[in-house]
Amino acid sequence: MNSEQLSERIFESPNITLRSISQGAEKWLYRPIKCLDHGFVYLVDYMGNDEAIVEAARTSYGQGTKKVSSDEGLIRYLRRHVHTTPSEMVEFKFHCKMPIFVARQWIRHRTANVNEYSGRYSEMLDEFYLPELSVLKQQATGNRQGRGDDLDSAVQEAVLSLLKEEYERQYGIYKKFLGFNLAKELARIGLSVANYTQWYWKIDLHNLMHFLRLRLDEHAQHEIRVFGEAMARITKDSVPISYQAFEDYQLYAVTFSRLELDILSQSQWPMSQEKFVEVVSIISNKREREEFLGKLKKLNFIT
Amino acid sequence: MNSEQLSERIFESPNITLRSISQGAEKWLYRPIKCLDHGFVYLVDYMGNDEAIVEAARTSYGQGTKKVSSDEGLIRYLRRHVHTTPSEMVEFKFHCKMPIFVARQWIRHRTANVNEYSGRYSEMLDEFYLPELSVLKQQATGNRQGRGDDLDSAVQEAVLSLLKEEYERQYGIYKKFLGFNLAKELARIGLSVANYTQWYWKIDLHNLMHFLRLRLDEHAQHEIRVFGEAMARITKDSVPISYQAFEDYQLYAVTFSRLELDILSQSQWPMSQEKFVEVVSIISNKREREEFLGKLKKLNFIT
Amino acid sequence: MNSEQLSERIFESPNITLRSISQGAEKWLYRPIKCLDHGFVYLVDYMGNDEAIVEAARTSYGQGTKKVSSDEGLIRYLRRHVHTTPSEMVEFKFHCKMPIFVARQWIRHRTANVNEYSGRYSEMLDEFYLPELSVLKQQATGNRQGRGDDLDSAVQEAVLSLLKEEYERQYGIYKKFLGFNLAKELARIGLSVANYTQWYWKIDLHNLMHFLRLRLDEHAQHEIRVFGEAMARITKDSVPISYQAFEDYQLYAVTFSRLELDILSQSQWPMSQEKFVEVVSIISNKREREEFLGKLKKLNFIT
Amino acid sequence: MNSEQLSERIFESPNITLRSISQGAEKWLYRPIKCLDHGFVYLVDYMGNDEAIVEAARTSYGQGTKKVSSDEGLIRYLRRHVHTTPSEMVEFKFHCKMPIFVARQWIRHRTANVNEYSGRYSEMLDEFYLPELSVLKQQATGNRQGRGDDLDSAVQEAVLSLLKEEYERQYGIYKKFLGFNLAKELARIGLSVANYTQWYWKIDLHNLMHFLRLRLDEHAQHEIRVFGEAMARITKDSVPISYQAFEDYQLYAVTFSRLELDILSQSQWPMSQEKFVEVVSIISNKREREEFLGKLKKLNFIT
Repeated sequence: MNSEQLSERIFESPNITLRSISQGAEKWLYRPIKCLDHGFVYLVDYMGNDEAIVEAARTSYGQGTKKVSSDEGLIRYLRRHVHTTPSEMVEFKFHCKMPIFVARQWIRHRTANVNEYSGRYSEMLDEFYLPELSVLKQQATGNRQGRGDDLDSAVQEAVLSLLKEEYERQYGIYKKFLGFNLAKELARIGLSVANYTQWYWKIDLHNLMHFLRLRLDEHAQHEIRVFGEAMARITKDSVPISYQAFEDYQLYAVTFSRLELDILSQSQWPMSQEKFVEVVSIISNKREREEFLGKLKKLNFIT
Repeated sequence: MNSEQLSERIFESPNITLRSISQGAEKWLYRPIKCLDHGFVYLVDYMGNDEAIVEAARTSYGQGTKKVSSDEGLIRYLRRHVHTTPSEMVEFKFHCKMPIFVARQWIRHRTANVNEYSGRYSEMLDEFYLPELSVLKQQATGNRQGRGDDLDSAVQEAVLSLLKEEYERQYGIYKKFLGFNLAKELARIGLSVANYTQWYWKIDLHNLMHFLRLRLDEHAQHEIRVFGEAMARITKDSVPISYQAFEDYQLYAVTFSRLELDILSQSQWPMSQEKFVEVVSIISNKREREEFLGKLKKLNFIT
Repeated sequence: MNSEQLSERIFESPNITLRSISQGAEKWLYRPIKCLDHGFVYLVDYMGNDEAIVEAARTSYGQGTKKVSSDEGLIRYLRRHVHTTPSEMVEFKFHCKMPIFVARQWIRHRTANVNEYSGRYSEMLDEFYLPELSVLKQQATGNRQGRGDDLDSAVQEAVLSLLKEEYERQYGIYKKFLGFNLAKELARIGLSVANYTQWYWKIDLHNLMHFLRLRLDEHAQHEIRVFGEAMARITKDSVPISYQAFEDYQLYAVTFSRLELDILSQSQWPMSQEKFVEVVSIISNKREREEFLGKLKKLNFIT
Repeated sequence: MNSEQLSERIFESPNITLRSISQGAEKWLYRPIKCLDHGFVYLVDYMGNDEAIVEAARTSYGQGTKKVSSDEGLIRYLRRHVHTTPSEMVEFKFHCKMPIFVARQWIRHRTANVNEYSGRYSEMLDEFYLPELSVLKQQATGNRQGRGDDLDSAVQEAVLSLLKEEYERQYGIYKKFLGFNLAKELARIGLSVANYTQWYWKIDLHNLMHFLRLRLDEHAQHEIRVFGEAMARITKDSVPISYQAFEDYQLYAVTFSRLELDILSQSQWPMSQEKFVEVVSIISNKREREEFLGKLKKLNFIT
């Protein structure tokens, strides 16, 4: 579906339903959020809202929930105590377009329903991900998987130019193969993982939040984080109370391990970094000590 | 939610949505189908319709599906060839009330989302399943798991009377325990599996059809089949083309094994039952031979 | 399988295998841990060990893991950062026998494979859960789902005596129904959820730990916690490094919410309870404030 | 793990275990089956055997299964009647190496546990899938997704030569990017889906058979079918009775739809193709009629 067709859908006459609706979700239906150079995410359909979670929870807990004064209180209670089944009662369906290497990370979340564009049936498009200069960075040294310092701009330009040329050549070969009438399922094998694919992706709120938690993380690859952020905007508007609870109790929460708790409970805070080096010695792993220091600094516990 | 509250929902003012709707599903929203003596099933929410399946399939198969003339043709093609992922794009949410022993069979379908009434938080109700006389049958001899011939009506009456009395006593003890202020989670342990529970149950169309296929089967226990039939009615109206295809290619289809196909291809049909006994001898298992005979009789292949 | 048969298995001649083994798991094979009055858990089979997790992780992270000095360091790193897929490579299969009401909570974990004893095919046994006096407690007031103070011992005795008598009557009716040749699937419906069932239950380590985390919790019902503790013992011996990491980073870890972190970072610690009441006022929910106070007390942050 | 390391494993001293073993599986442990030009599949670990399925089934069906004389009879009965939960009690873990486009089809089976080589952490290898000449075929006309007639050998040579040159250029650019110290997660985006990846893949027997059923099908892409066939060989030796039943009742079984059964039951067989055209007219879909004709021809029902 191209963007003109999408616009038409927006202006179509709306429907009447006995189902409950989410005003926040309605305003995102068929409105794509651009992601990377050729990608997008838009909401195709949804089921439920914050009240649907409350309704399911009250079925479970029956009279037991009567004392909880408000719907908001109940939703926050459920998330704080990781009672996630009521949030499985809300469902979202997205249409997403992304580079294949992003799709490969995304598909690892097994709890969604997926219908992906098939290169066996259909011609792959001449659309490849060409990064913006600003995201072309060096290999990170600390965490081994991500990006670190900036590259020289001359190097960045060289990378882009090589990629651009390479994409053109790849697609040229692909078209040549199709011209030979080579089976499409074979003609495509020289196309790179930067080539765009697309899919319908349907997931319940509980599992979507799990996806967002992992993919909004600073260690997630930038290119999938962009899609995570787009879906987070839509989710936030669709189930505002649940999303706020998700941020408060999961996304921006911090967990301390047993050993960290031992140190926290047996020391005076704040303390100097020198003192910290001393007390932290019961944690044998260097990286773990650094992670703990990072958490304490954010709490202003290190002077 | 009691039935008065349900009625109110039906008369509530409907909502405006940009989502697509299913007219057939709309008419089932909040309208309970009575099941057994105290149970029910009603549709709480849904997402998608037959067109949503087509839309997802066309995303997958892209231009490859253009030649397929109609939406109906595509849906039937998908089901005939067991391409089930597009039907995962449709979702149903039911509110169901059933005896615990039915819930225990039902929950074995692991692909649904469930929020069940909790006897730890809430008081169990004084509602127990008391079968109609007509379903009180003898143990089947053939298949070892089901019901066979009718019982004497005097015996049927005796069974009912014993059950009724037993339910009253069980509930009396439960109330007595609650009067002792015994924790609810313990007070209930003497209540039988005939006691009613309820839940919200959300499932996609593909997995719902798998559930229906197993639970509409004549070998399913009568008491869960009643619930299967209620959901089948709702499903049939909600996605009529898909349901028709489900009946044609799955529910009423018959599969022949490799050995059966060998015999079918090497013989003249129809044949006498005497002749059949001869040719079927390459199947060593008696029960398998009987099953084959049953299939052939339905095809008028046995004279 | 009864206990005599189990003993025979223990003394059977062992097998030779090219597979890797876990010495800790081997010693638990076929050795039941008694749970409640008639229940048990024993390990039937397993696949993998701590090294299998390392091996899978090194496949994923390739050369990137070379710098991590030890297997133990890698396993702990994975769990600390919730990289759970390598722990899915280890599998356990248990044979468990438990009251039906325990089985009903247990089955809610949908990621396991289950084969349960069927009351449609087989005769239910005359075994019902009769609690020990010490666990017969009052309904809790605080958390609405659990047990609180002790009951009078006279009341406890009354409860037990009523249950015992009730179980006898229920089983008597069941046997009478079988005597009528009533179908087994119907004859059992008057039996209570205290009646024992059993199953084979197979699950991977990641999902087992999720189960244990929920079912070892103080809010889990005592009767299922007993089974959780039995499986925890077996798991601890089978994958000792992973289990230690599970305890350190999950089971005994504590999470602070965004608001709690704000308060932690903006105050001087320790503080008096009076002062705490002041600073905690930005958290509007009473129960949430109490939970925060509880965490701080354990850290000696409240004077 | 390279092939030398694999060989070492084979010659390692075996272990003693109380677990049951499968002699057929043992002989496949660590013995790679070569797939395509650089790929392989080998069995890393397994749990269970045919007897484990019987044992689980007898737990479910209890005394009800006593009349079934043999283990083989029970396994065949279970599969014939699609009682698949006992076969979930057997588990296999494979190490597999395959082109990315094969991995993308494979990963759609969501019920397995996967640990894949990560191009974010580790350097991608200079291994790309170069098809054999014989599999370079034309686009199929009938089914729109597969391969049809042979290509001219000159065209085949041209395709191979273009691919080979393209792979070299792609890998050259990749190495140049690494030389720039561009983050590995970005450097790889120009590499094609013919580049090899690898993973540990763990799955239970029920879901493995579902995978095999789809991927051994003639409509599956040749390149994934090769991997399906390798795993089928291993499975067949590991659980011979179950695999035989799988072939008899699923892989080589044929299903007839409701309409096909109607026609079968109302006609005289065999019949001429002209007569068939007449009686088949109640099936409105052309492709469906052709599929029916195909089945009947295999049964010698068309003269």
